[in-house]
Amino acid sequence: MQGLTIDYQLTLSAIMRRAATLFGEVEIVSRGADGRLHRYDYAAMVRRATQCAVALSRLGIGRGDRVATLAWNTHQHLEAYFAIPAVGAVLHTLNPRLHASELSYIVELAGDRAIVVEGTLLPLLDQVSLPRAVEHVIVMGDSAGRPAASLDFDELVASGDASAFVEIDLDERDAAAMCYTSGTTGRPKGVVYSHRALALQALNLTTADSLGVSGRDVILAVVPMFHINGWGLPFAAALAGARLVLPGPRLDAESLLHLIASERVTLSGGVPTIWMAVLHALDARRPAADIRSLRALAVGGSAVPQAMLRGYKERHGVDVVQAWGMTETASIATVCTLPASLADAPAEAQYARLAKQGTPLPFVEIRARGEHGLVAWDGEAMGELEIRGPMVASQYYDAHAAEPCLTADGWFRTGDIVTISPGGCVELRDRAKDLIKSGGEWISSVALENALMGHPAVAEAAVVAITDEKWDERPLAVIVVKPGRQVDGGALRAHLAPHFPAWWLPDRFELVDEIPRTSTGKFLKTALRDRFRNARGEAITES
Amino acid sequence: MQGLTIDYQLTLSAIMRRAATLFGEVEIVSRGADGRLHRYDYAAMVRRATQCAVALSRLGIGRGDRVATLAWNTHQHLEAYFAIPAVGAVLHTLNPRLHASELSYIVELAGDRAIVVEGTLLPLLDQVSLPRAVEHVIVMGDSAGRPAASLDFDELVASGDASAFVEIDLDERDAAAMCYTSGTTGRPKGVVYSHRALALQALNLTTADSLGVSGRDVILAVVPMFHINGWGLPFAAALAGARLVLPGPRLDAESLLHLIASERVTLSGGVPTIWMAVLHALDARRPAADIRSLRALAVGGSAVPQAMLRGYKERHGVDVVQAWGMTETASIATVCTLPASLADAPAEAQYARLAKQGTPLPFVEIRARGEHGLVAWDGEAMGELEIRGPMVASQYYDAHAAEPCLTADGWFRTGDIVTISPGGCVELRDRAKDLIKSGGEWISSVALENALMGHPAVAEAAVVAITDEKWDERPLAVIVVKPGRQVDGGALRAHLAPHFPAWWLPDRFELVDEIPRTSTGKFLKTALRDRFRNARGEAITES
Repeated sequence: MQGLTIDYQLTLSAIMRRAATLFGEVEIVSRGADGRLHRYDYAAMVRRATQCAVALSRLGIGRGDRVATLAWNTHQHLEAYFAIPAVGAVLHTLNPRLHASELSYIVELAGDRAIVVEGTLLPLLDQVSLPRAVEHVIVMGDSAGRPAASLDFDELVASGDASAFVEIDLDERDAAAMCYTSGTTGRPKGVVYSHRALALQALNLTTADSLGVSGRDVILAVVPMFHINGWGLPFAAALAGARLVLPGPRLDAESLLHLIASERVTLSGGVPTIWMAVLHALDARRPAADIRSLRALAVGGSAVPQAMLRGYKERHGVDVVQAWGMTETASIATVCTLPASLADAPAEAQYARLAKQGTPLPFVEIRARGEHGLVAWDGEAMGELEIRGPMVASQYYDAHAAEPCLTADGWFRTGDIVTISPGGCVELRDRAKDLIKSGGEWISSVALENALMGHPAVAEAAVVAITDEKWDERPLAVIVVKPGRQVDGGALRAHLAPHFPAWWLPDRFELVDEIPRTSTGKFLKTALRDRFRNARGEAITES
Repeated sequence: MQGLTIDYQLTLSAIMRRAATLFGEVEIVSRGADGRLHRYDYAAMVRRATQCAVALSRLGIGRGDRVATLAWNTHQHLEAYFAIPAVGAVLHTLNPRLHASELSYIVELAGDRAIVVEGTLLPLLDQVSLPRAVEHVIVMGDSAGRPAASLDFDELVASGDASAFVEIDLDERDAAAMCYTSGTTGRPKGVVYSHRALALQALNLTTADSLGVSGRDVILAVVPMFHINGWGLPFAAALAGARLVLPGPRLDAESLLHLIASERVTLSGGVPTIWMAVLHALDARRPAADIRSLRALAVGGSAVPQAMLRGYKERHGVDVVQAWGMTETASIATVCTLPASLADAPAEAQYARLAKQGTPLPFVEIRARGEHGLVAWDGEAMGELEIRGPMVASQYYDAHAAEPCLTADGWFRTGDIVTISPGGCVELRDRAKDLIKSGGEWISSVALENALMGHPAVAEAAVVAITDEKWDERPLAVIVVKPGRQVDGGALRAHLAPHFPAWWLPDRFELVDEIPRTSTGKFLKTALRDRFRNARGEAITES
């Protein structure tokens, strides 16, 4: 017996209709590469996205075609975000921080039929050898230097007659978007999101216990729109009618602080590196920038040091909300907000909780598997996080489709090593590949890194496994010292000692100027392991 | 091209798993008919629901079987709420306020195979002539006088071995629950909810711009669980991990105020009649009851007089949140919270907005149709509200399946006459059948009633259409005067005159002791029309 319910499809088109009809007058602010602000509203955005959809159809772009974008967070990128899925095509965001050869590889793998590129990124695109499948290059923003054969985005939009738009009959399981994993290990793999996955993800972000995105919010979408669909924030903003601020390419602390103050931003999201820089800027300025409008900063991509949580809360009154997710979970899958049971707890207990990655969003389920099966939710036992839900990947696209990523009973294996506390709070202990296996036991590099970054002289810390004849692997810490500060390995070891078993303590501390990062801002530990492969013994080295 | 996503089903079973794993220690408080409080937690509730499911399976109850409940809001009813859909059966809630003959008719129509009944309601069930299809009567709570052939609910639960529970493979489109419309016109019709409809409805209630149900809430579920699944509040509470307070049969103002104060309730929901009584009790008490924990009262079922909004806000600091919905929309479909644009508006403008029924929840779409097609969203043009979404009924069950309820393009026709403001805020003007058609124009009975209830001497007011030879129909107002107050038609007419066109003013005012109500607490206007059918002229009558 079935429910007798309208067969309504959860699609990005439904979000687009909602934004146009309910939130038409809500503003979207976009900063260009030149720093100038562009202002219009959801009604105008949807009108242009609709025109764009009509024009794309006329170019022959339709169901299942992949259309790439290579752009920062701008209003035109947002229009493409809605226009491409509206014709049944698949929005494939490319990361401009990748090397041209990687981009060529990914465009080839995805089989993109068109690329929408920001004018300022044409020099990068010039280096990308485009496969033949790419029939159209469409240039957004400053298109002065665009190739002769390319199209101008604004002209394309203007050529589309919004009244000619006919909504196609989308199934919510149809593909809406795709992203390639950032590939810290091996080659990038394509993740294909259904309309349903992105619609439910957006809805989840509007729930009171996640980010609570609402019509009262002004959202600064710092996380790049090429990074897992900007964590779904653009879709969530359109679903809730939040004012949306798109910062363009300028993601330095001063530019962001200026936007937060001038646009009265209430909520933003990005990786720890960005917010650490903003915190340093806030701390350095007297008088501080006016960020009183800000209610929360969502932070994800890697674990957040407790020192940063405290810094924002105690010195600037801002809640930092940790989130965990990955390309394969359509971004945010767990969020750490304070549960009712800790509302009146001492600050120490609250920070200890907030330093974790949090509990799963609605209709997301988690569990963790150790070497002997599923581990207890005791906050102690480490295991690989497994996850399922309507936005979690079931397989990779095409070239990697045969690679198993699910367990036999249908849960996605994340490759992240976690503990789970009673009540389902996840704490990230490591990537499976970064975990240090010493004498048959596991050492969490993330736990050591967070503790090291709590030392007043340490700006950044990465801990990697070094091969050891006796113990198999041993931890080595790579440290960036804050300008004007000094520290040595003995002091760092003493700083760690009270919090960890003796055998967890790194055997070696290396001081470096900079820790290499991936295109998405995470520590590139493979590079560190290669560099310090032959490190041995107890020495404290300046390199 | 399809998304590559886990085929995760949005079901009540998923909510049940979530409550057990994440919110196991969160408390559920239930008050029995004897006034005593029963306390346990979600882990215990789900354990018992699971045992109950195992026992139901052993009785032969399974996929598609309808199982009725006849009960107040109690923890055992909650267990049945989860147990019945968990075995693939359909939870069919019966309204104990219906006449026994109506209950017989509905049980027959639904083809219920079992009835779970509260002991205190056995005298009512005795009068219900049960069709043969009903194989099992299961008695909850005080089962002292239960029939010999019946089963005791607690014994049934105890007989089920939770470890023997095997989750069945549910499709989210499978039926989970059904309700019969309260039938103010014609015979009741069955509405069948899919798991998907109820799961998305629960998720919608947790969004920040609707009720924002969260893990920090303590929810007093005043709206009966037999009334459109308690508006989805029990499912939303389990999804978010809110503490849940079930008030049992005692819904008088003193009992509710006592629970609000003692359990530190933050959110509740119910019909205006209930909250009006609570407001009177709050106003009468010196010192007032301690309701400082309360953040909002959700009110729906009929329009809320502005005087009530103001009374709660100005005298008791409580936000009254109007909601609109119906059996066919799985309850709440629009909610009126203050938009960002009115955050700093004068109180008058805020109350004017809050007196409306609000904007649609995520993935719910609205429009209104007048005599000449869809009407403009100008807050002026009246039309019949049409609605679509993944929780909206597409047809009625069985006997009424052939009755068209959708437009040709698939929107549900609500029968409610509304205006829609720019931005999509619905204002209920009337039920289509209650609308007064005078001289070819529409008069809103609801607008007149709300204005009349703003008069200090008026306790209740209902306005109905009376046949008129010249104008076709004319309004007649039926008034209940507050104890100790006096008023006449002249004063009431003078009270209305500044706010309405002269031809809207009722020709006649009838003073009565009580306005008849339906089983769900709404004015029974058919009875008033019958009673005053022959009323004519300008007289003010005491009847």
